[in-house]
Amino acid sequence: MSKTIAFTEIAKHATKDDCWVAIHGKVYDVTAFLEEHPGGAGVIMAYAGKDATSGFQPIHNTDILDLLPENCLQGQAEPSAKEASKHQPEKKDHEKAYKVMDQQQLPEAPYGKPPLDQMLNMMDFEAVARQTMKKEGWGYYSSGGDDEITLRENHAAFQRIWLRPRIMVDVSEVNTSTTMLGTKTSLPLYITATALGRLADPEGEVVLTRAAAKENIIQMCPTLASNSLDEMVSARSRDQTQWYQLYVNKNRHLTEKIVKRAEAGGMKALFITVDAPALGRREKDMRNKFAATAPSEMKDGQVNRQQGTARAISTFIDPSLSWKDVEWFKKITGMPIILKGIQTGEDAILAFKHGVAGIVVSNHGGRQLDTARSGIEILPEVMDALKSVDAVGKIQVFVDGGIRRGSDIFKALALGANGVGLGRPFLYAMASYGQEGVEKAIQLLREELEMTMRLMGTPTLADIKREMVDAKCLDMHFVPSPKDHLFEAIYEPMRGPKL
Amino acid sequence: MSKTIAFTEIAKHATKDDCWVAIHGKVYDVTAFLEEHPGGAGVIMAYAGKDATSGFQPIHNTDILDLLPENCLQGQAEPSAKEASKHQPEKKDHEKAYKVMDQQQLPEAPYGKPPLDQMLNMMDFEAVARQTMKKEGWGYYSSGGDDEITLRENHAAFQRIWLRPRIMVDVSEVNTSTTMLGTKTSLPLYITATALGRLADPEGEVVLTRAAAKENIIQMCPTLASNSLDEMVSARSRDQTQWYQLYVNKNRHLTEKIVKRAEAGGMKALFITVDAPALGRREKDMRNKFAATAPSEMKDGQVNRQQGTARAISTFIDPSLSWKDVEWFKKITGMPIILKGIQTGEDAILAFKHGVAGIVVSNHGGRQLDTARSGIEILPEVMDALKSVDAVGKIQVFVDGGIRRGSDIFKALALGANGVGLGRPFLYAMASYGQEGVEKAIQLLREELEMTMRLMGTPTLADIKREMVDAKCLDMHFVPSPKDHLFEAIYEPMRGPKL
Amino acid sequence: MSKTIAFTEIAKHATKDDCWVAIHGKVYDVTAFLEEHPGGAGVIMAYAGKDATSGFQPIHNTDILDLLPENCLQGQAEPSAKEASKHQPEKKDHEKAYKVMDQQQLPEAPYGKPPLDQMLNMMDFEAVARQTMKKEGWGYYSSGGDDEITLRENHAAFQRIWLRPRIMVDVSEVNTSTTMLGTKTSLPLYITATALGRLADPEGEVVLTRAAAKENIIQMCPTLASNSLDEMVSARSRDQTQWYQLYVNKNRHLTEKIVKRAEAGGMKALFITVDAPALGRREKDMRNKFAATAPSEMKDGQVNRQQGTARAISTFIDPSLSWKDVEWFKKITGMPIILKGIQTGEDAILAFKHGVAGIVVSNHGGRQLDTARSGIEILPEVMDALKSVDAVGKIQVFVDGGIRRGSDIFKALALGANGVGLGRPFLYAMASYGQEGVEKAIQLLREELEMTMRLMGTPTLADIKREMVDAKCLDMHFVPSPKDHLFEAIYEPMRGPKL
Amino acid sequence: MSKTIAFTEIAKHATKDDCWVAIHGKVYDVTAFLEEHPGGAGVIMAYAGKDATSGFQPIHNTDILDLLPENCLQGQAEPSAKEASKHQPEKKDHEKAYKVMDQQQLPEAPYGKPPLDQMLNMMDFEAVARQTMKKEGWGYYSSGGDDEITLRENHAAFQRIWLRPRIMVDVSEVNTSTTMLGTKTSLPLYITATALGRLADPEGEVVLTRAAAKENIIQMCPTLASNSLDEMVSARSRDQTQWYQLYVNKNRHLTEKIVKRAEAGGMKALFITVDAPALGRREKDMRNKFAATAPSEMKDGQVNRQQGTARAISTFIDPSLSWKDVEWFKKITGMPIILKGIQTGEDAILAFKHGVAGIVVSNHGGRQLDTARSGIEILPEVMDALKSVDAVGKIQVFVDGGIRRGSDIFKALALGANGVGLGRPFLYAMASYGQEGVEKAIQLLREELEMTMRLMGTPTLADIKREMVDAKCLDMHFVPSPKDHLFEAIYEPMRGPKL
Repeated sequence: MSKTIAFTEIAKHATKDDCWVAIHGKVYDVTAFLEEHPGGAGVIMAYAGKDATSGFQPIHNTDILDLLPENCLQGQAEPSAKEASKHQPEKKDHEKAYKVMDQQQLPEAPYGKPPLDQMLNMMDFEAVARQTMKKEGWGYYSSGGDDEITLRENHAAFQRIWLRPRIMVDVSEVNTSTTMLGTKTSLPLYITATALGRLADPEGEVVLTRAAAKENIIQMCPTLASNSLDEMVSARSRDQTQWYQLYVNKNRHLTEKIVKRAEAGGMKALFITVDAPALGRREKDMRNKFAATAPSEMKDGQVNRQQGTARAISTFIDPSLSWKDVEWFKKITGMPIILKGIQTGEDAILAFKHGVAGIVVSNHGGRQLDTARSGIEILPEVMDALKSVDAVGKIQVFVDGGIRRGSDIFKALALGANGVGLGRPFLYAMASYGQEGVEKAIQLLREELEMTMRLMGTPTLADIKREMVDAKCLDMHFVPSPKDHLFEAIYEPMRGPKL
Repeated sequence: MSKTIAFTEIAKHATKDDCWVAIHGKVYDVTAFLEEHPGGAGVIMAYAGKDATSGFQPIHNTDILDLLPENCLQGQAEPSAKEASKHQPEKKDHEKAYKVMDQQQLPEAPYGKPPLDQMLNMMDFEAVARQTMKKEGWGYYSSGGDDEITLRENHAAFQRIWLRPRIMVDVSEVNTSTTMLGTKTSLPLYITATALGRLADPEGEVVLTRAAAKENIIQMCPTLASNSLDEMVSARSRDQTQWYQLYVNKNRHLTEKIVKRAEAGGMKALFITVDAPALGRREKDMRNKFAATAPSEMKDGQVNRQQGTARAISTFIDPSLSWKDVEWFKKITGMPIILKGIQTGEDAILAFKHGVAGIVVSNHGGRQLDTARSGIEILPEVMDALKSVDAVGKIQVFVDGGIRRGSDIFKALALGANGVGLGRPFLYAMASYGQEGVEKAIQLLREELEMTMRLMGTPTLADIKREMVDAKCLDMHFVPSPKDHLFEAIYEPMRGPKL
Repeated sequence: MSKTIAFTEIAKHATKDDCWVAIHGKVYDVTAFLEEHPGGAGVIMAYAGKDATSGFQPIHNTDILDLLPENCLQGQAEPSAKEASKHQPEKKDHEKAYKVMDQQQLPEAPYGKPPLDQMLNMMDFEAVARQTMKKEGWGYYSSGGDDEITLRENHAAFQRIWLRPRIMVDVSEVNTSTTMLGTKTSLPLYITATALGRLADPEGEVVLTRAAAKENIIQMCPTLASNSLDEMVSARSRDQTQWYQLYVNKNRHLTEKIVKRAEAGGMKALFITVDAPALGRREKDMRNKFAATAPSEMKDGQVNRQQGTARAISTFIDPSLSWKDVEWFKKITGMPIILKGIQTGEDAILAFKHGVAGIVVSNHGGRQLDTARSGIEILPEVMDALKSVDAVGKIQVFVDGGIRRGSDIFKALALGANGVGLGRPFLYAMASYGQEGVEKAIQLLREELEMTMRLMGTPTLADIKREMVDAKCLDMHFVPSPKDHLFEAIYEPMRGPKL
Repeated sequence: MSKTIAFTEIAKHATKDDCWVAIHGKVYDVTAFLEEHPGGAGVIMAYAGKDATSGFQPIHNTDILDLLPENCLQGQAEPSAKEASKHQPEKKDHEKAYKVMDQQQLPEAPYGKPPLDQMLNMMDFEAVARQTMKKEGWGYYSSGGDDEITLRENHAAFQRIWLRPRIMVDVSEVNTSTTMLGTKTSLPLYITATALGRLADPEGEVVLTRAAAKENIIQMCPTLASNSLDEMVSARSRDQTQWYQLYVNKNRHLTEKIVKRAEAGGMKALFITVDAPALGRREKDMRNKFAATAPSEMKDGQVNRQQGTARAISTFIDPSLSWKDVEWFKKITGMPIILKGIQTGEDAILAFKHGVAGIVVSNHGGRQLDTARSGIEILPEVMDALKSVDAVGKIQVFVDGGIRRGSDIFKALALGANGVGLGRPFLYAMASYGQEGVEKAIQLLREELEMTMRLMGTPTLADIKREMVDAKCLDMHFVPSPKDHLFEAIYEPMRGPKL
């Protein structure tokens, strides 16, 4: 492993049958892995015999290299190459970083975005990100399963919940702080785990870590982070709380290694994703891939090319995960275990009976099963189920998906949640304004939640009650009958006075 | 206070650390107030060392100057300045007034509006006002809380109520008159309190006073009027009834002073606003502020700049107002007390038990809490609650929000209201056609209500019964499932014959 | 009355204080009537001292001249004028007729309409009529009350009724004939009464009479026909059945005269309109009037000008009509009496108890009270009410409003109607293709109804049963919650492959 | 029959009263048939005295010639003509075939379609087909009855069913295979019968046969195929299963002959269409016909011309088919009998009581009765009905209409179906990419169904349970109230930050 290999030597291994690449100063023989690469062999072949760091880094964290068989590692790349990779941005520098990352195939970010203080709500960040992010990153973050009906339903469902404000309550002081899984936090919300943070910021998830620290909220660190676990741990400030989100690997030894490393790194809870035995079909993301591929390469037989970023990272997830595994997890870690992705009352009861510390009611941000119900719709069913086995208060319940407003947080708490997770809004804030953007996003949510509490007559979170929301239409799915085109076409709409 | 100060002297105090301005012929040292100014220091600094009357008048009434500490007043401005401020319009003169007010930064009103008799309904006035009002005024009047869902729901809810007309009733004579809080009125509607009338007409709320007198309806005078209380009282004609709307000030001495002044001025009822412990986030209004600010001023650290007109006037409202205060109000005034902003049956019962004379079921025109229910939706819940404590008929119930048609008034009465309030439609009528516009608006509502009563078979308001409306869907909130874009995009709509 | 007056003489009476006009060869002094004219004095003054036949004829039938006081009639106009009025088209000649009628102010009909056999359904006729009719006529026919919500709801409601077809029924022969009020008819539909047929065809309602005869269906003749009663009676073929629709005049002597004339003319039933104590506010029609008036005439003080065609013809309708009048009608006529405009189950019971022969469940084509329910929605309520007093089968029930398809007719019959009325579709067919158009429209409805019966497994009308329709959502009024514009604006819809 | 006739001879018979044509080398006297031809006499007259094969072949299979009276056949056409008809494409050759077929009046297919591997779902094939198919074929395939509300409702209804996924189930292996009517199949779906396959591919339905074989699914062969029964049978591979769909002919001898030929040909089940005593009014298709006809031919009195492709093929269907016929079918065939087109629970019970082997819950792809309910909506009613007579499991239940996604298949199975049929998606896949397209379409459905099963926690079809779907809104028909245009027009939507 200490052998140093010259780039002239590496360049000799540049064919499908003998393919070496250098990544972060190490040289790997990836020949056997070429066909297994979920993103297709072509993506690697573009770097065959060369330094592949610039292509590797925006997508993968370095932990993923551990998954390669040991004999792949050929030695260290010669210093010059190492230096070259040092030119990759280590510090935040938006303009420069994007240029370095993009210089090969991606278009430059459009010029000119509004000043940060013009961001009034979560939607504003998304609007800026949609314009300023690279197509690939936007496609990966913004896409959902199949027709993206669940993706949009997640937010739409909140609008079937209406508020019943109480008046004449002293709201001079409003307090949004609470405790989640034993941690005091300034808001009943956490940054949930999302993959590939470097598509938003060249520094990756550590930007979220720093913003969470500044605003005193909890961050859930993802398995599929662009940053390594160590980077996220190192970025943590004193007294800051991080949780760890786990995709269970088919190789349980590796899974155990990861969990133990997370616990050793000071993670305070283990969120096991249970709604992704496979990663969903995200067609918007898949269609992006086609656009990015030149037609001349079309006949290459690369059957996986069209699967998009999402599915390129899913082959390590274990589809055989089942209830009996919970016991095993309890044995290998002292962290409280939370199941992320509960979607029925029945499974909430099972989770409780298997002794987990909490559950996240979630459909994975609408990225998995289309026409699955929204988390907020499922929440009352879950709370009723837990009540039926006298579990309320004995297990923590979180919900994520579609939360964009302080009033959405209020509604989730009223329906029984201990806290809520947000993912995409912080990615969009990070993509458009870096750490400052994420802090501003948290501040806006804080301001909106405080305003909602003040206008609802609830000075503390404990004052929020079920009867303060009218959710009777929450589980009604209204699909308008098809339009009567002929009839509508001949109707002449009313018009106001001519000006 | 009798000292006369020359403008050359005033001009010496034009910095952030020493800032004098003249308003209505008086000179104030506002240095200490600069940072407290909810609209930001910059707005005042534009007039530092000068006569600020032209900037002050469209937004504030002179009562608000009483809120400055007494030592701020430096003396009287020299006559020449006084004369200058006299040039402010005292009489209605639309073209000229707007020009004087706008000369600095606001665009001129577009040329050409339709003749008044082309106004057929409330929407027509709004359509004209949207085109002819200044952006700032339009933004302040038309905006609502957050996503403005409640703003629009207020009117949309009326369309979930359908009419069940009775036939073969003699409706030769139709009578719309009624009694509200002891006052005979020609219509079961009043002009409700709205702030900053001078954004619509340089004369302010007195225009509404005169129109109300002419059409024999009641006016509710606002705390945040552009006119002073005295001006509104003086404009009142003999036998005309005015009510007073109160924002409770943190300083209860001041509150008491205001209430007593209102009673002394002949106001016949005290409507205490209870749904605004803080003024809501009105993003449309906030976004206007950004547009009005030059980018070069962006780095000024004026964190409050983006709050818009609405929040700039809210810092004096007391968020600690609570039920125990009702008793105190009863002690300081003989006016009947009405709570404005009830939004649940529970609070209607509490209001009744605290012995108030009436309630207004209202969500503050959709300007406070977004996704709060509409007043008309809450009304049946309130009536049921009052019935459950045998309170029907012992307390008057008003409703406001979204009323635009005579049939809307009919529906509110059928569901139990004693009368309804309208605000924005009269502001828009005033903004587009002055006093004549307001009178025309009232006439149109009268005509529509009479037509509805005739066609419903109800010659008098007492004939209106609950079973004449079908409100079974009123509390259903229909949010269509997200569109299936792919499927819809390939469908080729039916087409009629080619012409 | 036999005096002959020269046009040079007539021309001397051409001022507001002395105004004569010639109509159909007779000379009238209309000075006293000028201010009473619902369409405003200006319309008449345009013909002061001249032959007004060309302006009178498209709007009024000659019966209406009987309403003038007897002393208005000055004599006969000189022959030359009489001849001139003879030039008015007596026979159908579309192109020419329109030109004669329009030559003064109306634009020519656009060139080119599709051949008649391209008309596939009722909507097609309306599409052609919208393009080819004059603005005034289109505005009068197509408009509805206020926001025209009921107008459109009338058809939309049918789409809340779904069909439950039965299979394996021998439908080799399908029979659409039935009996209504004792008359055999080839279809369970009649041409309902609508005013001012000459706006569609210069010959007026007699065109409908002839088409009804040819297709063997019943025509209901309107009080406000462009044709006189005699003309409609004369146009009737042997064995053809006509009914008479009555607006009850304030002058009961006149009413009695009209009813008796109708009975003497061979009308087989008397349909008394009970939903129009006043004619509704039809803003589209009113706005048309403004467009047709030059701005220079605006200050004329003609307060009625903006009321549109509809209200210009309503002043003779009696708003005091009530249940006690039914007895009087029974005394003055032997025709069966039907009340047209029932809108509640309660009134259906009252109608039955007052001994009428039938009712029409109707909201007057959406032209009266906006947000009144559709006839088809009210029908089940009416049938249930009649059942509760054991009246089913003892009183005939018709329904009109929004029927455009054969399946709509089927749905109405399944819900209990004996037959249905259609108005506008036949007017549009007449306006676009004359008598042939009306016949084609009836044929299309026949073809559609036969197809529906065949596919429903109902060879005769008697086979149609209540359980063959699913009407459980019929009385649900779905108003979508206001759109979330910010959220929707940033969503990037799914797109198909690039072609 | 062995007489050979020269084309010079044939050309002598080219008038309405004496009309011969040659088809596939045989000469027919079609004079007596001219007026009976559902497509109108004009279509045949275009080939009078000539070889009509090129006009006949895209629409009809040769079986249909058997329906002509025997004495029509005049002999064999001379070889030269026979050769000419040989030039018709026998093998797949997309470009060429279309050109030969279209050379007379149809436009060429647009240039350029996306590579096959960019097809991500069923909608993509339809999008390509819409652009590349000829107008006539697209019109015939894509059209539905009347306003096409049921056509679209068929798919929309699936979006009123939401999924309740279960977690922590081992889904390493997912198995989509099942048994339908005794045949093992790789997917719970079959290619349902659709007419006129040559409008999509010059080879016709045999393309579907081959694709079905390759993907191991069942094909239902249509009566109205472009291919003859023999061609479809011959195309079948060893062990492949075909079913036969039957339109019952008025001539029962002929019907018996067809059924026996199907059974002899190895068809494994007989699906009798029971929802089409007449073929529906498909206006989009009808309007196409007009566009294709030159205006100069308009006066020809060809009353049937406008009926479109659909109705031109329907005159042989027997409208007298009824329950008693089931017994007869049992006598003439040993194939299991399935009724296709059940639309109520009542008829499902009747079908069971008449001893059929299965039913297809279907509305004929929305092509028959408009506002009939979707198959998926009817399914729960049917299952409840069957349960009420203890028939569940004793009769197989299929459903078709609107299925476009793997999740749609899952929903149908959860609600009780044994399998589902798809028609149009395979026609569109065939039209755009031939056999490869159809295979790809099946693969995509397989992939989607597997993904759905994995994410639902159901490794086999037997694991799919009723409670895994939330169908409580499935039978609710939401028709939004008409829009309030004036109110909406003046609302200024929220806008995000300016970029």
